[in-house]
Amino acid sequence: MPLVRVTNFSVSLDGFAAGAPQSLESPFGHAGQRLHEWMFATWADGAPTGVDAVFAARWDVGFGAEIMGANKFGPPGWQDDPEWRGWWGEDPPFHTPTYVLTHRPREPLEMEGGTTFHFLSTSPEQALAIAQEAAGDLDVRIGGGATTVRDFVAAGLVDHLHLVVVPIVLGHGTCLWDGLEGMEEGFHVESTSSPTGVVHLTFSRRPRA
Amino acid sequence: MPLVRVTNFSVSLDGFAAGAPQSLESPFGHAGQRLHEWMFATWADGAPTGVDAVFAARWDVGFGAEIMGANKFGPPGWQDDPEWRGWWGEDPPFHTPTYVLTHRPREPLEMEGGTTFHFLSTSPEQALAIAQEAAGDLDVRIGGGATTVRDFVAAGLVDHLHLVVVPIVLGHGTCLWDGLEGMEEGFHVESTSSPTGVVHLTFSRRPRA
Repeated sequence: MPLVRVTNFSVSLDGFAAGAPQSLESPFGHAGQRLHEWMFATWADGAPTGVDAVFAARWDVGFGAEIMGANKFGPPGWQDDPEWRGWWGEDPPFHTPTYVLTHRPREPLEMEGGTTFHFLSTSPEQALAIAQEAAGDLDVRIGGGATTVRDFVAAGLVDHLHLVVVPIVLGHGTCLWDGLEGMEEGFHVESTSSPTGVVHLTFSRRPRA
Repeated sequence: MPLVRVTNFSVSLDGFAAGAPQSLESPFGHAGQRLHEWMFATWADGAPTGVDAVFAARWDVGFGAEIMGANKFGPPGWQDDPEWRGWWGEDPPFHTPTYVLTHRPREPLEMEGGTTFHFLSTSPEQALAIAQEAAGDLDVRIGGGATTVRDFVAAGLVDHLHLVVVPIVLGHGTCLWDGLEGMEEGFHVESTSSPTGVVHLTFSRRPRA
């Protein structure tokens, strides 16, 4: 049965998935690239093939659709720019239908490589139903940012949640954990530390009785 | 040279070292014993002798004094009870001079087993100077709670910080990370996950240039 998954979602020790303020020049605000250095390191020639690499390599395996929040698609105000086509150039790395949650939807954007951006103003449940229909037998990825992951987890919609806790303290931003008190209930939780200092934390939903 | 250390300080994924409200009946509020189960488990007959056990066993090694916040010494309002002698009975586990930071100091309390509680209304720096004088060649432990650890870390006074991140989301309480943005700078940070699901996170101050 297809799953709803979050993979390789980096957060700081204090639970922030991006810094602030976010802008065209600084998509991750004052966090810069610090939350994702561990992943970039796995892409280098001769990089270690250990736990960071195997998790990172799973990023795009098995997905038939992605759902993302408006802040992942562009900098604040992108809705006012009819030419904005996302951060990723003409061939984005999703290669599937990709649903952008925004209160100001626009016409779909068909990119190269199989990515089509669709813009939805709807609830997590309804967006997921639409994405699952498109994904067929494959899984749906909840791609972030923190608010979107939080909303889907809070609504009980996420089956597998893979966080990467990076040992930095960002101090401000949007906290993943707000409103998620007790979310560990119903999940098998496993933590695996990497020699790079990050911790891979996986929440896997236990079979429902 | 003697160090200032925090050891075996448990925090939730969202950075809380205790729940709320704290009371005589519930010293850790709604967190109950969930933050410390990993440690209690190491005390059981036949317990594993792995990473949790070795960290836990270091809790009281090498210390000549402890500093704690008022909320660690007793429930809210203990200052109004002249008979209150701490949570730990007549033979507390500290076995050293133990400095309680409170705006309402009282006369020292000499307990059995080498623990004497002293009550100080002063800054972290001054409290540390007093504790270091008492500790001599031994280290000083900053014992908690979250506010006290945070204040000493923010003041740059802590050399070694050992946190135990427990994979639960508490939702509210006092957050260890508030005001500690960038605190990882100047430390070597190492994370070690345990089969029990907790993560031992050690911040070790790099030699000052």
